Amino acid sequence: MEKRLQIGILGLGVVGTGVVEILAKEGQKIKEKTGVELVITKALIRPGEDKVDFAKQHSLQLVYDIKDITEDASIDVMVEVMGKIHPAKEFVLAALTTGKHVVTANKDLLAQHGTELVQTAVKNHVSLYYEASVAGGIPILRTLANSFIADEITEVLGIINGTTNYMLTQMVEQGMSYEDALAKAQELGFAESDPTNDVDGIDAAYKTVILTRFAYGTDIAIDDFVVRGIRGIGIEDIELAKTQGYEVKLIGMTKKVGTGVFAEVAPALVPVHHPLASIRNEFNGVFIRSTGIGQSMYFGPGAGSLPTATSVVTDLAVIAENQGDNKPAPQFVDYRSEKIFADPKDVFSAYFVAMELTDDPQIWQEIKEAATGFAIAYRELENQVTAAGKRRIVVMTEPCSEVQRHQFVSAVEKIEDTKITQIMKVMEE
Amino acid sequence: MEKRLQIGILGLGVVGTGVVEILAKEGQKIKEKTGVELVITKALIRPGEDKVDFAKQHSLQLVYDIKDITEDASIDVMVEVMGKIHPAKEFVLAALTTGKHVVTANKDLLAQHGTELVQTAVKNHVSLYYEASVAGGIPILRTLANSFIADEITEVLGIINGTTNYMLTQMVEQGMSYEDALAKAQELGFAESDPTNDVDGIDAAYKTVILTRFAYGTDIAIDDFVVRGIRGIGIEDIELAKTQGYEVKLIGMTKKVGTGVFAEVAPALVPVHHPLASIRNEFNGVFIRSTGIGQSMYFGPGAGSLPTATSVVTDLAVIAENQGDNKPAPQFVDYRSEKIFADPKDVFSAYFVAMELTDDPQIWQEIKEAATGFAIAYRELENQVTAAGKRRIVVMTEPCSEVQRHQFVSAVEKIEDTKITQIMKVMEE
Repeated sequence: MEKRLQIGILGLGVVGTGVVEILAKEGQKIKEKTGVELVITKALIRPGEDKVDFAKQHSLQLVYDIKDITEDASIDVMVEVMGKIHPAKEFVLAALTTGKHVVTANKDLLAQHGTELVQTAVKNHVSLYYEASVAGGIPILRTLANSFIADEITEVLGIINGTTNYMLTQMVEQGMSYEDALAKAQELGFAESDPTNDVDGIDAAYKTVILTRFAYGTDIAIDDFVVRGIRGIGIEDIELAKTQGYEVKLIGMTKKVGTGVFAEVAPALVPVHHPLASIRNEFNGVFIRSTGIGQSMYFGPGAGSLPTATSVVTDLAVIAENQGDNKPAPQFVDYRSEKIFADPKDVFSAYFVAMELTDDPQIWQEIKEAATGFAIAYRELENQVTAAGKRRIVVMTEPCSEVQRHQFVSAVEKIEDTKITQIMKVMEE
Repeated sequence: MEKRLQIGILGLGVVGTGVVEILAKEGQKIKEKTGVELVITKALIRPGEDKVDFAKQHSLQLVYDIKDITEDASIDVMVEVMGKIHPAKEFVLAALTTGKHVVTANKDLLAQHGTELVQTAVKNHVSLYYEASVAGGIPILRTLANSFIADEITEVLGIINGTTNYMLTQMVEQGMSYEDALAKAQELGFAESDPTNDVDGIDAAYKTVILTRFAYGTDIAIDDFVVRGIRGIGIEDIELAKTQGYEVKLIGMTKKVGTGVFAEVAPALVPVHHPLASIRNEFNGVFIRSTGIGQSMYFGPGAGSLPTATSVVTDLAVIAENQGDNKPAPQFVDYRSEKIFADPKDVFSAYFVAMELTDDPQIWQEIKEAATGFAIAYRELENQVTAAGKRRIVVMTEPCSEVQRHQFVSAVEKIEDTKITQIMKVMEE
């Protein structure tokens, strides 16, 4: 079998040019393995972009109108690496509708419009792959889809935002403040000038949506779960956690509790010997708990143009490999499960709770009574007067349910001049 | 498409019964994904084994003669989980020759007779899968074969023997002696009463052979490279390494240097912040350096009946998935490359070298001159008189080639009353 697949690519930024260059380098190896030659013939760029030399070097035709790709019957596969939701979504839908396979690295798009895109792919008998959308260089989605078929995943914990992990690593290891760590991340190009998507956990939440789809076949939305980032996180909490044998990490969590799914993005305490604690700086790690394998984790670069481009080309190679199969074009993952959420009273965790209150024993007594009232056991980690004359108390609770935690938080927040400055789940060893 | 594949299994030990039970539990999910029903119909056991109840429960026919499986045309796939080379090799060859796909967890078999077995599989148009043979629960082989197709792997570093990693972890963390760590590993069932295969690095070497095949398509033999284990390793070297920011780990290494391959199994110094340093106790980790992704690592259980059985069933699911393809049965990995070894003068590493010599400045002067003579720069980590009145000197060298190291070692070993008590590669961050 000797076959040729023609590809149109949207975007020739760092990832797009990387895809072209990697395919030039590895195309022969892919052809030997799959019997299919992958050739990028057209690239969509914006008017004014100077890509003439690059296009000549790689025999690409530069086009400026999406129809030159979506309405070109000679193109079999479209690669979307332009980013943003619009017009990427319309372009991808147009390609799928005209029977082209699509490879994209666009996590925002897949997290927000995945269901519609996947249904369109199924309807048109084409494949839609997006390995690069979560943890850029780590082939985690294909691993979840293929290597856990004989297993039952019960929990996925991901350090899936490199920017915040870089910041937290600098805070833990260099004793840097939140502001300094953010400034350094921006200086190194890890964080954008508006870091909202990273520090508020939104980027991690998109990836958690996609991980949930691959772990359980369940399609949840970003509005279905609690998303908290690390904005303004205090070095004092990070250092106190460290004295207790924990590192603070921003964790995208999705777990199966009974027949339901519980997802959350929030800073959490990870035991120093937990594999996730070893994920430093801008790297990503995805830890999986399953009934068969037990514990496993995949570590690698979370972003970067070269790892991302490599993942895109791997998706193209899989499309090549599927050619000639006597079967419908495979989907990246099957949606098997209804959207059922775990009952909050069945979801348990220990918590690290930092509070600031008026320095009055009566107030602290009220908080203690609230804890006892909701049957929350705890031990004190810190109890002292701050420079501002307030009392700072930090406790670590025994495992309690989401319901208990919620009741306790509500009760404490009603007490005059009292606030919970930080609350974090404590991960098990 | 609705199809049924019948399976014969060799061995109903912990792994074999695990395979039967996992398939009973996950078979429906596999059928939904692949359209193929996997059914184990026969199990080969030894006369005298009491498996009647188990067989009845799972509708298995117990057989005692291999021909009842290899010569049964109704059986499409054979699972070999009996272990050892003989008669497993003959049984696997018989199954492949009669056109049955084979799944095995037998690393000794694959490392020693892989070439012959794979050729037999190719010739008979059947698949031979053995994911469970390396790092039991980690789907590392399929990941190397599939997810690095658009990448160039340059180095694989594996902690691939759980027993020795457990021992080294206990030595580092509990300050235990080699002997006590071994006794504890035996007590917990991680090490056998004759621990040779583990502590002398032989088990890790078999796995390094298989990893080399998957990383580079090159088939090397265990006799082609240096294999050293951790037998009798000194707590003093482990503790000294720790003060320098390193953990001692038994590493199976296979790297590409120019067009050649360099493989080795030996204890090595791993920087504490290297991802491999976080692999503790009986867990395994495989770290990959590649031109596209950069650094990545897969962590998980190295052995255990449940993870191993899960990997076997995943292999079966892949065979199910391949059914109906209009193509020859896929091989697990292609052998692409000739066996070319790296030139030792091109293979560089820093070294940790511990020496014991007569306490005489002249002797130490001779050693220093040998180092200078072979252009090896170093710094002293320790230089003191031992309880036995000898001088113990430990140095850390700058990177030097295999040739330089070899020359230096030979020169030192010629000096009277001088011996190198430990030499370990120092891994880069």
